[in-house]
Amino acid sequence: MLYVIGLGLGDAKDVTVKGFEIIRKCDRVYLEAYTSVLTVGHETLEKFYGRPVIVADRELVESGADEILAEAEVKKVAFLVVGDPFGATTHTDLVLRAREKGVQVQVVHNASILNAVGCCGLQLYSYGEVVSIPYWIENWEPDSFYDKIATNRERGLHTLCLLDIKVKEPTLESILKRKKDYMPPRFMSVAEAADQLLKIVERKIEAGEKGLAFTGDSLAVGLARVGADDQRIVACSLREMIEADLGPPLHCLVVTGPILHPLEAEYLLQYATDKEKFEEMTKQKESP
Amino acid sequence: MLYVIGLGLGDAKDVTVKGFEIIRKCDRVYLEAYTSVLTVGHETLEKFYGRPVIVADRELVESGADEILAEAEVKKVAFLVVGDPFGATTHTDLVLRAREKGVQVQVVHNASILNAVGCCGLQLYSYGEVVSIPYWIENWEPDSFYDKIATNRERGLHTLCLLDIKVKEPTLESILKRKKDYMPPRFMSVAEAADQLLKIVERKIEAGEKGLAFTGDSLAVGLARVGADDQRIVACSLREMIEADLGPPLHCLVVTGPILHPLEAEYLLQYATDKEKFEEMTKQKESP
Repeated sequence: MLYVIGLGLGDAKDVTVKGFEIIRKCDRVYLEAYTSVLTVGHETLEKFYGRPVIVADRELVESGADEILAEAEVKKVAFLVVGDPFGATTHTDLVLRAREKGVQVQVVHNASILNAVGCCGLQLYSYGEVVSIPYWIENWEPDSFYDKIATNRERGLHTLCLLDIKVKEPTLESILKRKKDYMPPRFMSVAEAADQLLKIVERKIEAGEKGLAFTGDSLAVGLARVGADDQRIVACSLREMIEADLGPPLHCLVVTGPILHPLEAEYLLQYATDKEKFEEMTKQKESP
Repeated sequence: MLYVIGLGLGDAKDVTVKGFEIIRKCDRVYLEAYTSVLTVGHETLEKFYGRPVIVADRELVESGADEILAEAEVKKVAFLVVGDPFGATTHTDLVLRAREKGVQVQVVHNASILNAVGCCGLQLYSYGEVVSIPYWIENWEPDSFYDKIATNRERGLHTLCLLDIKVKEPTLESILKRKKDYMPPRFMSVAEAADQLLKIVERKIEAGEKGLAFTGDSLAVGLARVGADDQRIVACSLREMIEADLGPPLHCLVVTGPILHPLEAEYLLQYATDKEKFEEMTKQKESP
């Protein structure tokens, strides 16, 4: 039996009672640790569950899936996922392969950033398509997420931007040497995301594009460690977001729609870095 | 202190360990019971928590909010919400009013249908704006949700349709008599939702509209009691969905985007009412 269990977003106690009871009965517990992170380490989880926890990186999940599923044919195996189980394609794939092999699967849902982002006060029903912002590297600076945000904004919708996570990325050197050596983990901050977005805006302006759907003056919301005790939220212009320091990961960024509902504006005001400026930005019919 | 606690989607044990520990320490526990429902009644929750649970209807939450907040100034008050706390505007409003009064607020997140809908295998990052489908009544048959679904589809995106809930709606007679008398609760089924959507399609065809973004032949997914043990999912054309009986509430409906990712199609196949037809529908580059 394979149990795919969402852990939610904060610490060990954000697992559901149902999930917790299952984990404590499992013969083997894997923790997926490359698409997201909790605010506590796996030792804390081991102590809380009273069970050893095997940290599963991308390699283990993708090439070791057969082994995990072979175990699940004869034992109770828990596969723990930060957030909700269906947040990433890899997990859908694992469930599908389990069912193909005739392994029974039970899914235990939990909060994910897709619904928990509601904590900033912007209505969940006013979001368009979610986008992912990847780290730019030399000679690879994709910008298609700008267009998706722009299209959402043209339809009056907010955009949740998920920010890149690099965990256990092999160094270039180690790839050449065929010896495993990993870069330190990196988590994109709201400041880095805002910086990349602004660069795209600047390039578009330089290229003579007019009537951009959003610019450095548009309202953005930065969120860090949503659901944790030390959660932080700031609302300011995209340009000001470049200076924001929201502390440890994970971060995510929201580019708001052009018009806020009065209740949204009232709620978001508490997170404004400059309340006067925020009121100025949101009282206009269309924010810039 | 006001604790706003998400209960998730299934039964009593879908609350998080954090939420459960808080509820057991609270002096007063309210259960919001008009924007969603669990598969268990409030008596089951009372037994599980070891605490009396006050069922709060819209009237109590909206006009009795001052009383709830006055209690929260001096006591520990839990306000329980099915799904995630920020799923409905009323809850955002309650948190905002609490903060205005200087009442401390802690939010405990949980799964909501917005992320749990991932269980049907359609990628969460390929959904556009969520829509709500209301019950039509005499002389009030709104159809703006059709256009939102159509726009999502034109962008290649799926649409999650939340279906109407009528709980404690006063009867027309009781409004006239000024005596409180309520209609039995109603929960829109996927069949009813598909029927209303098809009626809109037919009207558009009669009005001579061409190139409709979706019709009765388009692929839809019906989901019932997501997260519960007896969860059900079916995939078929919108027209066939009119005949689907998915049992007790809550239901929701997904209108898919025009093209499925191969992994999405592979996963969704297990829920197809007619596997051959499903493969026919999804192997074309664009489903009709």
